[in-house]
Amino acid sequence: MISDWIAVDWGTSNLRAWAMGPDGVLASGSSDDGMGKLTQAEFEPALLRLIAPWLGAGQTPVIACGMVGARQGWREAPYRQTPCAPVASGALMAVQTDDPRLRMMIAPGLSQSKPADVMRGEETQIAGALALLSNFDGVFCLPGTHSKWAHVSAGEVVSFQTFMTGEMFALLSQHSVLRHGMGGEGEDDAAFAEGLADAMARPEKISARLFTLRAEGLLHGLSPAAARARLSGLLIGLELAAAKPYWLGQRIALIGAAALSTRYADALQAQGAASETLDATACTLAGLAAARGLMQKAMP
Amino acid sequence: MISDWIAVDWGTSNLRAWAMGPDGVLASGSSDDGMGKLTQAEFEPALLRLIAPWLGAGQTPVIACGMVGARQGWREAPYRQTPCAPVASGALMAVQTDDPRLRMMIAPGLSQSKPADVMRGEETQIAGALALLSNFDGVFCLPGTHSKWAHVSAGEVVSFQTFMTGEMFALLSQHSVLRHGMGGEGEDDAAFAEGLADAMARPEKISARLFTLRAEGLLHGLSPAAARARLSGLLIGLELAAAKPYWLGQRIALIGAAALSTRYADALQAQGAASETLDATACTLAGLAAARGLMQKAMP
Repeated sequence: MISDWIAVDWGTSNLRAWAMGPDGVLASGSSDDGMGKLTQAEFEPALLRLIAPWLGAGQTPVIACGMVGARQGWREAPYRQTPCAPVASGALMAVQTDDPRLRMMIAPGLSQSKPADVMRGEETQIAGALALLSNFDGVFCLPGTHSKWAHVSAGEVVSFQTFMTGEMFALLSQHSVLRHGMGGEGEDDAAFAEGLADAMARPEKISARLFTLRAEGLLHGLSPAAARARLSGLLIGLELAAAKPYWLGQRIALIGAAALSTRYADALQAQGAASETLDATACTLAGLAAARGLMQKAMP
Repeated sequence: MISDWIAVDWGTSNLRAWAMGPDGVLASGSSDDGMGKLTQAEFEPALLRLIAPWLGAGQTPVIACGMVGARQGWREAPYRQTPCAPVASGALMAVQTDDPRLRMMIAPGLSQSKPADVMRGEETQIAGALALLSNFDGVFCLPGTHSKWAHVSAGEVVSFQTFMTGEMFALLSQHSVLRHGMGGEGEDDAAFAEGLADAMARPEKISARLFTLRAEGLLHGLSPAAARARLSGLLIGLELAAAKPYWLGQRIALIGAAALSTRYADALQAQGAASETLDATACTLAGLAAARGLMQKAMP
């Protein structure tokens, strides 16, 4: 099995790769060789460990997105400034490799000057979403460690904004005093809804509401699962309150993991805002394929 | 040198003790034997390592406040429920010791049922502040890891609220993605003021403003000292915005470390709210002395 080209999503913590044939994915693999733990010289060996079985005698195009293009990555792919299309052929950064079988390219991230903001990887998911949804005009929400909201019009990212929702949840639930009263994996939809409504109604109260979770555990026996769900609701509610100028009255598409996207969709629905959901991996692959298509057009 | 009694402030991370004579402090000591690292059997030896030189042949009263009275402490001193005076003689919890020279007492913390909240140690500082300021009616603000605002009237704590400001600052500046663009100990008053004004004007925007610090570092060269000061301003501004029902139109006294209290005092001044500042250690000692005085009155 020889792939036509190879798609790579290379983030801070993980490396994922797909062998692509004429009809889509032939094979896939992943490792924990994320950008965060590699020196510059270790990127090519880490990639080859995963994709060597898919290489033929000739040169295979490899297109990667994500933190691999950061300053601390394999090779810096400078941000492209919004407003602009999420991917563009001329902007792909060619990377010299030791192995002659690789034709390595990195898709750059996007930046916005004011308010200052950056993304690396999400632009490729947005490009993929635009390929999957024809003539989309509206906003994309990409929930996660650093949730992104992007306003897209006429095929261009007009503006975007990042929220540290997922990272705040991880820090507060695992590393703050709140960790003593959190735990388990159980869902508590009522507690989530309560936190969500509370934060959307009074977002400015957030830093008081957080300690209340600890005190309710001590005084009123708030269960760890309820505390965890309420924290999630509070932080997502805080994000949705601040992102209101993005989603109000707009067509909304969520790009993310299924469980988390459902939380956001339900929360938006409670505000009277309908949304559709796209699978994050499907968007990444479609976006890398779009970059590959542009590359072929540019260099036939 | 034999002390009349011994004052102890025993928190999660540190143990501090003072040998008290008729005219005040005779000697003091501290160690990192905080409640957080001790098993129940280790409290008495940890205390004796510090205060043994101050003990005479007879029994010496030792009065402690703080997390030593938590469920995971030496002996649980159940919360007293507000509204109530910050310390009360009958509520001091006697602790049996192996060493017959100790007459050990722990001052309990306070709880509030709704919104659920707790304090351990701050109630003693508030009692001390009430001893230092005669006829105080108004609010105390105790900035720190878990900042507390307490409304005090006629010698009683009427209500209080905790904000996780200091812990959020530590987590975000040291453990989040923001740590890459933070550092140094330099002060940047303009950046602090900018963050403060921004959070007070638009507190609901906080989770977007946080990531902007990272992006401004990457795109516009925001210095680590400025990023750190702006983060501090944002989080203190968020607290002051939510605590407004406490401080608006009230007499305000700050109890805390000098540098941090100055930040709060300046921020309140910018809102047209005057405040006075009391030294935190002076308040702790005055509060423990007040507890000692109540104990003597009750058992002459």
